[in-house]
Amino acid sequence: MELVSKPLAGILVVSLEQAISAPLATRHLADLGARVIKVEQPGTGDSTRHYDSVVDGMSAHFVWLNYGKESAALDLKSDADLAVLRGILDRADVFVSNLAPGAIDRLGLGLDELAAAHPRLIVVDVSGYGKGGPLDHKRAYDMLVQSEGGSCTITGTPGHPAKPGIPIADCGTAMYVYSTVLAALYEREKTGRGAVVEISMLDVVAEFMGPVLNQYIHAGVDADPVGMGSPMIVPYGAYPTADGQTAVLGTTSDREWQRLCAIIDRPDLAVDERYAHNADRVEHRGDLDAAVAQWCAGRSLQDIQAAADEAGIGNARLNRVGDLVEHPQLRARDRWRDVGTPGGAVPALKPPAAARHWDTVSGSVPALGADTEAIRTEFG
Amino acid sequence: MELVSKPLAGILVVSLEQAISAPLATRHLADLGARVIKVEQPGTGDSTRHYDSVVDGMSAHFVWLNYGKESAALDLKSDADLAVLRGILDRADVFVSNLAPGAIDRLGLGLDELAAAHPRLIVVDVSGYGKGGPLDHKRAYDMLVQSEGGSCTITGTPGHPAKPGIPIADCGTAMYVYSTVLAALYEREKTGRGAVVEISMLDVVAEFMGPVLNQYIHAGVDADPVGMGSPMIVPYGAYPTADGQTAVLGTTSDREWQRLCAIIDRPDLAVDERYAHNADRVEHRGDLDAAVAQWCAGRSLQDIQAAADEAGIGNARLNRVGDLVEHPQLRARDRWRDVGTPGGAVPALKPPAAARHWDTVSGSVPALGADTEAIRTEFG
Repeated sequence: MELVSKPLAGILVVSLEQAISAPLATRHLADLGARVIKVEQPGTGDSTRHYDSVVDGMSAHFVWLNYGKESAALDLKSDADLAVLRGILDRADVFVSNLAPGAIDRLGLGLDELAAAHPRLIVVDVSGYGKGGPLDHKRAYDMLVQSEGGSCTITGTPGHPAKPGIPIADCGTAMYVYSTVLAALYEREKTGRGAVVEISMLDVVAEFMGPVLNQYIHAGVDADPVGMGSPMIVPYGAYPTADGQTAVLGTTSDREWQRLCAIIDRPDLAVDERYAHNADRVEHRGDLDAAVAQWCAGRSLQDIQAAADEAGIGNARLNRVGDLVEHPQLRARDRWRDVGTPGGAVPALKPPAAARHWDTVSGSVPALGADTEAIRTEFG
Repeated sequence: MELVSKPLAGILVVSLEQAISAPLATRHLADLGARVIKVEQPGTGDSTRHYDSVVDGMSAHFVWLNYGKESAALDLKSDADLAVLRGILDRADVFVSNLAPGAIDRLGLGLDELAAAHPRLIVVDVSGYGKGGPLDHKRAYDMLVQSEGGSCTITGTPGHPAKPGIPIADCGTAMYVYSTVLAALYEREKTGRGAVVEISMLDVVAEFMGPVLNQYIHAGVDADPVGMGSPMIVPYGAYPTADGQTAVLGTTSDREWQRLCAIIDRPDLAVDERYAHNADRVEHRGDLDAAVAQWCAGRSLQDIQAAADEAGIGNARLNRVGDLVEHPQLRARDRWRDVGTPGGAVPALKPPAAARHWDTVSGSVPALGADTEAIRTEFG
């Protein structure tokens, strides 16, 4: 019989956070049982609270990122409230901030001061571009950092770059904050020592650009976007079906290419020397996409997927957001649960990763300053 | 004076891995000092070895993902080589696999058996769609999972969905593997207990779709892609400049809107009731984009950015891959270093996140099976 645990039980996190990167990181710390105190500006709070009001007055972003946390509305320009924050820091394990450049220094909460005063504290500061260099003063929203980082110009179609709908710079940075806190907690168990961590969103985007960076450095290829295709593999793409849906499929190897030719009834292509290897097929992207498109246009999505599955060809359905909400794979695996909000319970997905024996927490979304008085009493 | 450490020194990771998700996770474990043994099929190895040969015969992907690891080419259908793997597992802290569905079970390395035999082992299995449900048998490449997960239909332009150039399903899954291993290592320090973790790429994409899922559930909005724009904020976009570059800028608040109107010399817009609030501006996306575009078209990128900086308006340059390679912000902050390959040293970026006192490792990319004999001797 398994004993259930909350792996981060007993860990206290305090976060001067806004938008996405720090809030997603601390929400995942809360998922695993950490106590997270979100410090917000009285009156306005985290700017994402005001993006819209679709969730019973709260925004779609804010609800996604903030369940399982406490909200303390503290005016850090007041000595009394700053003293409350210092009281929290005296007992905290982790301090995260992603305020504008220089803001924590102006509060007297610079990294060096915090590390000196709290040798066991894990301090994480998130910035757009890191310290130093020509851009370190610049504002950094996801789209701006993705633009600087090149990820938009490899997305979309040639001449029509696009920002990926998922905010990769923000989500990726959140994951580096989260993982680096965990690595530092692990090390602290062994050494007793805290850590100072600075994470730049640009560095995160650049990491994920690894393969195209190498293509440029070593082969001089300055990659163009390829829509729903793959820059390196042909044929691969999204093709309308006879029943008004869109199938996504293609080949990742010469053997799969042979099998694909069989199911699309084009044995002539399978023996054509011009298409024998992937490098050849990349040269004939248009012709081969057209052949697959023609086959898909005459069949239902179900028939296409059945034939592809039978032949061992990877395939998928091009879903919209609504399809994901209803996705049978998420339903069948019981991936949805309820989380609380001031307006009542709402659906949320379980965290993507947890050990089987972990009891992941599904706390509530706090109203602005909901826990201020309790926190003043506890830490003031 | 800071004492330098490798936080994961002494940790042994063995990985039956291919492609991106598991390899990026284990590379980050290696970055922090873990010993990572990558088990590959003799003769072929990880399929990413063969994507291209631009890095002195190795592929752009493989070099990005595999420095700092050892390669053991083991034929797991042979009893002798399977015994070597079992010998490694007897001493390993972490076992990661992202083989095709059912493959580790067929090797007798199912999660339950491993957990029972190695109670301190942290076992992580990555799949496309998780166990159970209608899709659990299906192949899962990044584009397929992103298609199922809806992230392509919120990327691109209406009618022209696009796969984000960064493989978000793969990179995001890597980050959940990495972070969950670290959380499990932390817990094990306290309890002595290992963990069994199953991660599905679809769940990762669905997590990052959080805000658009909420928009659909609570407001019935099935989001369309908006190119280089923001679905929620107007004006925001990418605009050609007089000197042939592309500026990215816009407003995130009504106050910024007032400041933007001033710098683009359109005081008439600032007082126009039709554009007073962001929700109004979203209704007039085309008109306002045109006004910003006209201003940018008459100025150099440098002048645009100087004016925007002066006014406190976030802005960026739309970079291509080559621009990122040469990015002055990465150069000024000394983000590049060398890693070894069988053909010599090549440039690679430092990991995006590390504590100041950590000595991140920059090991070499192994040739296929480079360490097989040494590993047979050590663990056989």
